[in-house]
Amino acid sequence: MLKVAIVGASGYTGVELIRLLSNHPEVEITAVTSEQSAGKKISSVFPSLTNIFDKTLEPLDADLIAKKADLIFTALPHQKAMEVVPHFLKAGKKVIDLSADFRIKDASVFEAWYGVHKAPEYLKEAVYGLPELHREEIKKSQLVANPGCYPTSAILALAPVMRNYIDLSTIIIDSKSGVSGAGRSVTQDTHFPEANEGFKAYKVGSHRHTPEIEQELGIMAGRRTPVTFTQHLLPVERGILTTAYVWLKTPPGPGGIQELYDTFYTDEPFVRVMPAGSFPDICQVRCSNFCDIGLWYDAKENKAIIVSAIDNLVKGASGQAVHNMNLIYGLEETIALLTPPTSI
Amino acid sequence: MLKVAIVGASGYTGVELIRLLSNHPEVEITAVTSEQSAGKKISSVFPSLTNIFDKTLEPLDADLIAKKADLIFTALPHQKAMEVVPHFLKAGKKVIDLSADFRIKDASVFEAWYGVHKAPEYLKEAVYGLPELHREEIKKSQLVANPGCYPTSAILALAPVMRNYIDLSTIIIDSKSGVSGAGRSVTQDTHFPEANEGFKAYKVGSHRHTPEIEQELGIMAGRRTPVTFTQHLLPVERGILTTAYVWLKTPPGPGGIQELYDTFYTDEPFVRVMPAGSFPDICQVRCSNFCDIGLWYDAKENKAIIVSAIDNLVKGASGQAVHNMNLIYGLEETIALLTPPTSI
Amino acid sequence: MLKVAIVGASGYTGVELIRLLSNHPEVEITAVTSEQSAGKKISSVFPSLTNIFDKTLEPLDADLIAKKADLIFTALPHQKAMEVVPHFLKAGKKVIDLSADFRIKDASVFEAWYGVHKAPEYLKEAVYGLPELHREEIKKSQLVANPGCYPTSAILALAPVMRNYIDLSTIIIDSKSGVSGAGRSVTQDTHFPEANEGFKAYKVGSHRHTPEIEQELGIMAGRRTPVTFTQHLLPVERGILTTAYVWLKTPPGPGGIQELYDTFYTDEPFVRVMPAGSFPDICQVRCSNFCDIGLWYDAKENKAIIVSAIDNLVKGASGQAVHNMNLIYGLEETIALLTPPTSI
Amino acid sequence: MLKVAIVGASGYTGVELIRLLSNHPEVEITAVTSEQSAGKKISSVFPSLTNIFDKTLEPLDADLIAKKADLIFTALPHQKAMEVVPHFLKAGKKVIDLSADFRIKDASVFEAWYGVHKAPEYLKEAVYGLPELHREEIKKSQLVANPGCYPTSAILALAPVMRNYIDLSTIIIDSKSGVSGAGRSVTQDTHFPEANEGFKAYKVGSHRHTPEIEQELGIMAGRRTPVTFTQHLLPVERGILTTAYVWLKTPPGPGGIQELYDTFYTDEPFVRVMPAGSFPDICQVRCSNFCDIGLWYDAKENKAIIVSAIDNLVKGASGQAVHNMNLIYGLEETIALLTPPTSI
Repeated sequence: MLKVAIVGASGYTGVELIRLLSNHPEVEITAVTSEQSAGKKISSVFPSLTNIFDKTLEPLDADLIAKKADLIFTALPHQKAMEVVPHFLKAGKKVIDLSADFRIKDASVFEAWYGVHKAPEYLKEAVYGLPELHREEIKKSQLVANPGCYPTSAILALAPVMRNYIDLSTIIIDSKSGVSGAGRSVTQDTHFPEANEGFKAYKVGSHRHTPEIEQELGIMAGRRTPVTFTQHLLPVERGILTTAYVWLKTPPGPGGIQELYDTFYTDEPFVRVMPAGSFPDICQVRCSNFCDIGLWYDAKENKAIIVSAIDNLVKGASGQAVHNMNLIYGLEETIALLTPPTSI
Repeated sequence: MLKVAIVGASGYTGVELIRLLSNHPEVEITAVTSEQSAGKKISSVFPSLTNIFDKTLEPLDADLIAKKADLIFTALPHQKAMEVVPHFLKAGKKVIDLSADFRIKDASVFEAWYGVHKAPEYLKEAVYGLPELHREEIKKSQLVANPGCYPTSAILALAPVMRNYIDLSTIIIDSKSGVSGAGRSVTQDTHFPEANEGFKAYKVGSHRHTPEIEQELGIMAGRRTPVTFTQHLLPVERGILTTAYVWLKTPPGPGGIQELYDTFYTDEPFVRVMPAGSFPDICQVRCSNFCDIGLWYDAKENKAIIVSAIDNLVKGASGQAVHNMNLIYGLEETIALLTPPTSI
Repeated sequence: MLKVAIVGASGYTGVELIRLLSNHPEVEITAVTSEQSAGKKISSVFPSLTNIFDKTLEPLDADLIAKKADLIFTALPHQKAMEVVPHFLKAGKKVIDLSADFRIKDASVFEAWYGVHKAPEYLKEAVYGLPELHREEIKKSQLVANPGCYPTSAILALAPVMRNYIDLSTIIIDSKSGVSGAGRSVTQDTHFPEANEGFKAYKVGSHRHTPEIEQELGIMAGRRTPVTFTQHLLPVERGILTTAYVWLKTPPGPGGIQELYDTFYTDEPFVRVMPAGSFPDICQVRCSNFCDIGLWYDAKENKAIIVSAIDNLVKGASGQAVHNMNLIYGLEETIALLTPPTSI
Repeated sequence: MLKVAIVGASGYTGVELIRLLSNHPEVEITAVTSEQSAGKKISSVFPSLTNIFDKTLEPLDADLIAKKADLIFTALPHQKAMEVVPHFLKAGKKVIDLSADFRIKDASVFEAWYGVHKAPEYLKEAVYGLPELHREEIKKSQLVANPGCYPTSAILALAPVMRNYIDLSTIIIDSKSGVSGAGRSVTQDTHFPEANEGFKAYKVGSHRHTPEIEQELGIMAGRRTPVTFTQHLLPVERGILTTAYVWLKTPPGPGGIQELYDTFYTDEPFVRVMPAGSFPDICQVRCSNFCDIGLWYDAKENKAIIVSAIDNLVKGASGQAVHNMNLIYGLEETIALLTPPTSI
């Protein structure tokens, strides 16, 4: 039985980890931490967990947590994870970090977007935890930087065509996310009467997820890959839909773009390339680890529209973290993750 | 491996059965039927099921279905189930019927609300499938009449006090249901722009679920038990919240109403009596088989307010059906049903 | 041209007053105050008002406001209004107060629910601003205590039968309100991912609106009138639906309860008694000053179910305040208030 | 007093016309038609209108309607309007047609997207009713082709830069619309449980609104202007947000793109160019005739992101139709249209 701890368990990604792991036969959650709610049963904060997972939240004591667990999921805010992750690594523990702190390889890029890094020496060894691109490295890693929700949807949408695009900064990534992506902290923007029946773009031209997307697409493309990335706030709880626009250098081959994607993702358990003419809906992946992808291609202009849908809390966060855990420990990689989406 | 068929698999309760059973290690779904979509893969109707359950829908051929399955879930409209259920019973099969056709013991009461019954000879032997009240009969039954969603929420809210209420027709049951309770057929009332941001009472004073509630409460009370039952349409997908008002004959004892409920439901895996002062929220039981109950008692007037919450498609339909199946076959009764609610 | 000021203009009822008054041909808004946003244009806080009403918010200086306006709408939190209203009254100004501070006639009742009153000498002279019950007093008043949203819906639902009910504390008022009723301050309960797709009862058995309802129903009944009042949080922006249950002493007469209500409200411009068999929907009164009422009566048990719907921000707050203003100044009482509801 | 008739009054754009015109002091609605609901009071179909507009719906008799009205709004499905509009024109009446039937100048383009046109002789004289581009022609027109909702949002977003874009088919228009845009007819896609909490792209690569956008942008650009237009279904009732991506040939001048837009729309009463760094939200224009526009410009790549928001039923349909009516009759053009958006 694998012993895991969840640090920062009272946020949405923390409680989603509990939801998913409570159905995992090989895992025991031995500790859950929360600064705000330490001393309370987690089920008093999240009544949904009553009778399923009633453990008491404890304050974060890194030594104690390291003693209790083989693997630690850190679900802390950005800048907080980097303070505690090195402790766990030095204690020989595996870490899957759900913050942005270890996703960027280049410390100067990190600093430009997030501020000074307190543990830059770990940036190189951290593995970017997108299994579809880095499965083998993940299996051997001690520290996984779990991808952001927007980058997951964008990178999976674009990876298959990255070797074949025109360099005019013409990659457009128009993403729309449900409100749970903004986390559990209350704000005016996420106050029900203001978010409900609303829809808007935000942080246009300067979202922190941009360098993460450019880094990974750049690896695929084999060169610097600037993108135009816009995000919008959807009045739903879960889900990200990304509509990507790209011009290709050469046509995608006789089977078209459909075959290109079918082939690229053929062995992937969580990417579902839809039949030609079909496009994804966020409700068809809700509460699941799937990424659905739909494709449109205009041969005349060699232009493609690629639409992807994920659940931001599952494939975009906690589900992908569990997937990474399964990979690290050599478990069947779909364990606890093949539940049907709750489309209704 | 238990072989089950789902007759009427393309409605919401049908697809919810598939969602739940796909995580059941002892069950194989051997056939799914649909008149409208026969010949199509069910995953083409419900893309959420892609790569999880891709079986082709077949037209309903009762003989063929009886050959393929040990147990048949009938998820047909009222008046349709009664036409096919006798075939399955005569073939020696177990049946769990999710329609209203076998819920009412008294054929004349059935007729008053639903019209002439075509198989009244089965009304007596059908067991009302609410495990909290009829667990032992269910275990021995061949035909289970799976309870309605509103009645499940109302009966569980009131059962513990039924031996102790004042007879003034003063039982008020004010229920509110999400839109999935109206089924998958499109109507003006359930057209998004008309249901969304709306809320209304409907069928005031005359809902078909009334006799079902009165029958079961009457059994508990030991006498005829008229109720005032009002239902409302909530602009959410899932969930029923019932607020019940009742005057008691005598105080509930030294531990109060809280102890009365705690005791009554102490061994029940799916009823969660909340701590004093807490009340349920439909989102805390979403996609789960739980019924959460909160209590308020006014000693001066000997009056109680009882609030219950369920997911209408799970505890109010398909989850309860799976629970009944587990009971009939002597399986651990919580198998496939102890997943945490998706509160976010 | 009537000069009015809005004190506390950056809350929902404040901005709703601006929305309604911007279409009022006899009124000029000469000042708007806000502590939090003083110095900003109100349209920078509420972009919807851009190019319509761009006045700058000022801090609350009671003397200055009194100089600028004939009538002051105070849209402050409870306990804050009572500090400033006396200033305006002493300066000879009219005041319509949207807080609860002057709604309760009996200072000891006020204190039991809200704490010590700092200006109890004004409680008697304040007129409870429900035009359907107190039109003539409102016309002559200097201080109107604008009713709460829940009480408006409950009192209008029950007023016509109050002389004719059985005294068993059997008045049940089951109310459901949209989230804007909780105001603009952010809380965990009103955080989008937690309110959306949820529904719950709250403050069961002890809501501050109870004494206000009991006071006004008591006046109608001519005796003390305890009620059982439960409120619920609806995942919509606007609207209150109240379902009231009452047992009558005697039948309501040959025309039935329908005629009773039709007659009672026959001259009221904002109460629409629906035809027999029809029931209101909150979306049919959205953004309007209407109260729609639907009726059901069971002659056998002499029991009635009355359902009312209002927009909590309009008939339940700012629209009723404008109605009161029209009455005080002898204007056509429907000015600026007869816009059709935005049902879609 | 101007007499107007609404043909097809029981759809969403018809009832929205009634909502807006009921506040228009110069207009009397003399007839409303509906095939489905002829003989019923419109307030029985739309209870929101009770006591405001209770006229009886009549079947469409073109001669009779022409006698009753000076101006006819035709709010019929595509292909139906073209059958009746010529009757009204021949009778010397003014017509504002809300269907797509007269929007396309080129009959062969119309045929490619919609099928054979039955009255192509009117295509040339019909004026495309976007006041910001065609105000003077509208004033003199007998037949106004009221723009589609998506085209209104897209054309207003892009008009100011059309003389200055690079020709690589690189105009990307990513639009998202609320469900009321799909009309009042019920469908599976707009069934509440399937639309709610969902979000998807639809008709990718081939929406009928494309030629209308290309026609109008082409006029501005002075050459053929292909666009890539994608639309998505938002789970809200009202609102379209369009995010447009464009590369410019030359920088927009010293004041930047902000000044370009400020200048272009400086005299327009219904276009609100937002301050730099601000972006629109559909809820800030809800139920109003405003189009809000936000801008982002990247000087390095000479690339712009332009975001526009409208209410699809008002600026995208009925409000624009009323605006056109005001223009045709030389009325103050903002009459009945300057009501504040209902942002909450």
